[in-house]
Amino acid sequence: MNRNVAIMGATGAVGAEFLRLLEERDFPMDALKLLASQRSAGKKLTFRGEELPVELLGEDSFEGVDLVLASAGGGISRQFAPLAVRAGAVVVDNTSAFRMDSDVPLVIPEINPEDINNHKGIIANPNCSTIIMNVPVHPLHKVNPIRRIIVSTYQAASGAGAAAMEELKTGARAMLADEPFTPKVLPYPAAFNVFSHNSKIGPEGYNEEEMKMVLETRKIFHCEDICIAATCVRVPVLRAHCESINLQFTNPITEDKAREILAAAPGIKIVDDRRKNYFPMPLDASGRDEVLVGRIRQDISQPDGRGIEMFVCGDQIRKGAALNAVQIAEML
Amino acid sequence: MNRNVAIMGATGAVGAEFLRLLEERDFPMDALKLLASQRSAGKKLTFRGEELPVELLGEDSFEGVDLVLASAGGGISRQFAPLAVRAGAVVVDNTSAFRMDSDVPLVIPEINPEDINNHKGIIANPNCSTIIMNVPVHPLHKVNPIRRIIVSTYQAASGAGAAAMEELKTGARAMLADEPFTPKVLPYPAAFNVFSHNSKIGPEGYNEEEMKMVLETRKIFHCEDICIAATCVRVPVLRAHCESINLQFTNPITEDKAREILAAAPGIKIVDDRRKNYFPMPLDASGRDEVLVGRIRQDISQPDGRGIEMFVCGDQIRKGAALNAVQIAEML
Repeated sequence: MNRNVAIMGATGAVGAEFLRLLEERDFPMDALKLLASQRSAGKKLTFRGEELPVELLGEDSFEGVDLVLASAGGGISRQFAPLAVRAGAVVVDNTSAFRMDSDVPLVIPEINPEDINNHKGIIANPNCSTIIMNVPVHPLHKVNPIRRIIVSTYQAASGAGAAAMEELKTGARAMLADEPFTPKVLPYPAAFNVFSHNSKIGPEGYNEEEMKMVLETRKIFHCEDICIAATCVRVPVLRAHCESINLQFTNPITEDKAREILAAAPGIKIVDDRRKNYFPMPLDASGRDEVLVGRIRQDISQPDGRGIEMFVCGDQIRKGAALNAVQIAEML
Repeated sequence: MNRNVAIMGATGAVGAEFLRLLEERDFPMDALKLLASQRSAGKKLTFRGEELPVELLGEDSFEGVDLVLASAGGGISRQFAPLAVRAGAVVVDNTSAFRMDSDVPLVIPEINPEDINNHKGIIANPNCSTIIMNVPVHPLHKVNPIRRIIVSTYQAASGAGAAAMEELKTGARAMLADEPFTPKVLPYPAAFNVFSHNSKIGPEGYNEEEMKMVLETRKIFHCEDICIAATCVRVPVLRAHCESINLQFTNPITEDKAREILAAAPGIKIVDDRRKNYFPMPLDASGRDEVLVGRIRQDISQPDGRGIEMFVCGDQIRKGAALNAVQIAEML
């Protein structure tokens, strides 16, 4: 084993989580190279007790590199991932740049690990909301194919990066002090507010985040005829996304059966205490690997017994991004 | 006209809004009596430039009173509303005490004003989430009957009262200062968190707030066979609820048709700018009378064209409670 790893976008919210995870999980490797833009090059980050320099990302950054964990934005990935592949590296890309390319596998390790084998140098990490929804949805789908998903999200600021998390806190301080506040990273004040996800709206009225949930799910499930409608919404939370999920199955399914399937599925922790009114919450999910799943119940709006509702919460930076990518890298 | 009005629960979040609205709307009346519990009796509140004393609510509080606006909790309403009726008053009750009683009309003035005529002394004001959902949903239902509603809410702290709003701010200050914080009013920290609505969970796994949305909607619409599944969730917002609503109609309906119906309906403001990514938000809805409606789009998960999705936001204290009650009183 002679593994040289590089992180592209080492100083972002996901980059920082890559460093933590590689350390925590004792990822087998010989050397770690931190790459970032001009703005961050020259900084130092601590890894396994050592100070590592952040190097300027350039065309010749990938010589001798075996694995690249990329999270520096779609444009950067489109430019540099092919160069890394040409230099002999495998790229696990956390951006949306290559997700829908037919020769790039899109992988959630709990769901479709076998797709990794088909890679041609790049493996894509799905969108955070897609991952958090599908870790619990897919095991149910495997037993009883899902026909339709209706999902509404409660998304944290971290999805818009470390600067948005900081802006949420700054904005909250200003509002509490009755001071004026103009957001710069997010389009609207995030503190004490809720707004529709700030990605471009397509011709059908769905934003890009919502269409990612639709199209990526179909690709990961290898199931083109599953009907999905998503509403993606930002809430004033730092780093964990919640999702309210309504499912319609092909065949009737009981709440007990759904719970039994979920209890046996990987990457999930059931948090569903009706007596204590204790269910998945961002404050609990933050910093955790598992997607928390609760409010599991028969959908009373589907009297034919084919519906299940649930409410899930997962750490957006961890399972929604860095952890999923590191799990893919571990499988390589 | 010789109208003596009393407010039961004058010092709460909704009570304060009653005072503002009666003043703002120049509600025709001769005298106003403020009633509250031992804890608040003796305080003074300003109304139309005068200081009014808050009196202790008692069995003989309703002599000479013509109209009672009640918002002091279900138990208080159950105890005192019948006494007020016996004393000759009409009670517009903002609690859940009588909503599902078959001889108590449950009214949203934009939807079923004619039901007011059947009252026997008490008229019930629906739950806030029910009102905010149905002001935009009912006009669509009138044109093309709705078969199924799937709704996920983003509910403000105000629904749990003025103390919960204060607790959200106190908790946010503590979290921003990295100080420990233990909530007392709400079951979990509200700031930078999201949690399932803190009402009791019934045998089918739905909480009381969710079942109110189901049962009250059927009563208001006079439509027992409409299928509804709700997921009620609290978010760190002060006083406006958002709701993500998925509708299935009896017949196909286009997005343009839905928009046309909504534009002509009362109590609604359409906020739906896809180019600017500008949609309903709590910061805009707070203090407003109208329910803001946006993200109006054909549901892509219903390929038969019978689905519409939308995202709405309304002031929980105002249209969700006090304003709706005052509108009922104005119609009396």
